Amino acid sequence: MRVGSKCGLESPPSHMVNRPSRPSRPSQRTRPIAPGGDPFGVHRSVEPRGALPQPAKRVDNDFSRLFEGELLLAVETLNVDAASFRQMEGDDEGGDVGAQVLATVRDRGKQHNPVTGSGGMLLGRVLQIAGGRTEADIAVGDRVATLVSLSLTPLRVDSISAIRPASAQLDVVGEAVLFASGSYAKLPADMPDRLALAILDVAGAAPQVARLVKEGSSVLVLGAGGKSGILCAAEARRRGGKGARIIGIESHAPYADDLRELGYCDEVLTIDARDPVAVRKAVLGANGGKEVDLSFSCVNVADTEMAAILSTRDRGIVYFFAMSTSFTKAALGAEGVGKDVDLIIGNGYATGHAEHTLALVRAMPDMRRLFEARYG
Amino acid sequence: MRVGSKCGLESPPSHMVNRPSRPSRPSQRTRPIAPGGDPFGVHRSVEPRGALPQPAKRVDNDFSRLFEGELLLAVETLNVDAASFRQMEGDDEGGDVGAQVLATVRDRGKQHNPVTGSGGMLLGRVLQIAGGRTEADIAVGDRVATLVSLSLTPLRVDSISAIRPASAQLDVVGEAVLFASGSYAKLPADMPDRLALAILDVAGAAPQVARLVKEGSSVLVLGAGGKSGILCAAEARRRGGKGARIIGIESHAPYADDLRELGYCDEVLTIDARDPVAVRKAVLGANGGKEVDLSFSCVNVADTEMAAILSTRDRGIVYFFAMSTSFTKAALGAEGVGKDVDLIIGNGYATGHAEHTLALVRAMPDMRRLFEARYG
Repeated sequence: MRVGSKCGLESPPSHMVNRPSRPSRPSQRTRPIAPGGDPFGVHRSVEPRGALPQPAKRVDNDFSRLFEGELLLAVETLNVDAASFRQMEGDDEGGDVGAQVLATVRDRGKQHNPVTGSGGMLLGRVLQIAGGRTEADIAVGDRVATLVSLSLTPLRVDSISAIRPASAQLDVVGEAVLFASGSYAKLPADMPDRLALAILDVAGAAPQVARLVKEGSSVLVLGAGGKSGILCAAEARRRGGKGARIIGIESHAPYADDLRELGYCDEVLTIDARDPVAVRKAVLGANGGKEVDLSFSCVNVADTEMAAILSTRDRGIVYFFAMSTSFTKAALGAEGVGKDVDLIIGNGYATGHAEHTLALVRAMPDMRRLFEARYG
Repeated sequence: MRVGSKCGLESPPSHMVNRPSRPSRPSQRTRPIAPGGDPFGVHRSVEPRGALPQPAKRVDNDFSRLFEGELLLAVETLNVDAASFRQMEGDDEGGDVGAQVLATVRDRGKQHNPVTGSGGMLLGRVLQIAGGRTEADIAVGDRVATLVSLSLTPLRVDSISAIRPASAQLDVVGEAVLFASGSYAKLPADMPDRLALAILDVAGAAPQVARLVKEGSSVLVLGAGGKSGILCAAEARRRGGKGARIIGIESHAPYADDLRELGYCDEVLTIDARDPVAVRKAVLGANGGKEVDLSFSCVNVADTEMAAILSTRDRGIVYFFAMSTSFTKAALGAEGVGKDVDLIIGNGYATGHAEHTLALVRAMPDMRRLFEARYG
């Protein structure tokens, strides 16, 4: 979908972008570098000052000068968090997403949806690398995807050239800055951007599975037919080997069929993960009457904590990737049934997670084909 | 505080309890045992049927018969969750807590506060042990504290004889049932009930610390001057030895002084744990410029996730005991600053946790004296 003036653009169209009346937008020229760059970006928090940039109401998006450790990017595409995009569209999908993005970025200095609290990620090209960064593998001109949320990324949007509701993406002209602690991934040359973005969006899942699954482990994946669920099941099979027992739960029948065809799971069960008693019964049935060693929850509905907890053995691990997880339901739920399990909050970041997950997809051609068909 | 009719009691006073018109209350006689007892208590969920008892709207509290695996208790005291008790009192503390407890238990078959969603624990005497339980250490007549929430414990309250707002306790006449998976602790003979209850209420903390802290670990405890914070600091010192570095953060000055006197911490810092940048700076200053290996959050205010995350080294562990922890703030926060740490949801249950924590308090006479003064 192309957008023009009907989108309610409040910035000038791109052919006007370099007009002399906007001296604060030096575009491609090298910016001076100021000292005092904080690795976590505290130096750009304006309201309140001294805050971290994510909780901050507003951050400084004046890129006429940079701070030590910053990476300046020419933004090509905003990959808005799906929940945020749907909220801006509204129930009747008539909302002017472009105008709302421009307003949010103008008000807050970042695409931090004030209603949903979520952000997304972006795709851009490196314009300048400020001193104090230690990476050897990045150069001006590289195309990268940011792996930290837009909700903390200083951003300026000059114009919007396209909006793609199906993928919650906007093509824009603008600039952004990544702090020294902000991770990113170079876009791989061997796959389409959209596929790479779809994979990088859930890059944290597989590396955590790789750390925890041992040869012969029994593993439950809830929501195993979705993007992160498939990555978890594939990694569990790779680490666990033939002796592992991998059980996938997927309530959406077409996704369950896709998962069966991939062959990573010993059993794929079509049950609602919100029914803990039914899930436990099915898992025991699929695992020789025993609870599993490890459960990974990749479901994106609420009230699935107990299905994972009840299906896991004492001193086993329940790993919650699902952002719909409730801290209190998990904590009190495990206590209530006397389950001595480790309950882990899914950390979207792990050292080397982007390379790890891209390599996993390359190593699994069937999965890559499925992801290209679904998300490419 | 004694209560009588002004409390709006809807059950008969205790001297009328055994009147023949209530055949469903067989009091002290042995109850028949029905088959089909589920270890997690699903058999007593009435609304909806098949649910776990905690999420259930209503559970069956008819104790004229028991089910396999159940433990029948004569209830002496309800130790209501503090948040629940304050909600029932209301802002002006004029609320009739007794009447509300009776109404809740009558409607739901359990003291599961419909507003706060929380429960508490209870103190009672074993009346009958149904077949199918495996414990050898429990006998009829033993006094026990339940270690699972009242929000899932079938309960009948016949009358209330006293209410103690300071400790959020009610002395009652009634009965309750513990399912086979429900843990409990025998009340120790060597300490007052109130002290034992106060300790058992946070019995899960110290055993988890004992599992994670190694000889020489560096450890941060947020909210270190509270009950669970002190237990964590003491256990960290015991496990970590003299070479460990234990840093406590406590914003309440009198609690910080208590903690300093106990001597478990190398440094006690009086900072607001909601300021992650200040906490990180102070922790680095107290730990030779390095982030700590392990952080334990025992704070009961919101927005303290980042203080713990920012202060912990890559591949370190951040353990959240604080029930005010937000799952999404922890998950997205760690990702946003690129921290490869393990984020753990505090599980209130661990095998042997009650014995472990009671033994810790016995081994630390200074802590015991402080707890007796504060909570005894």
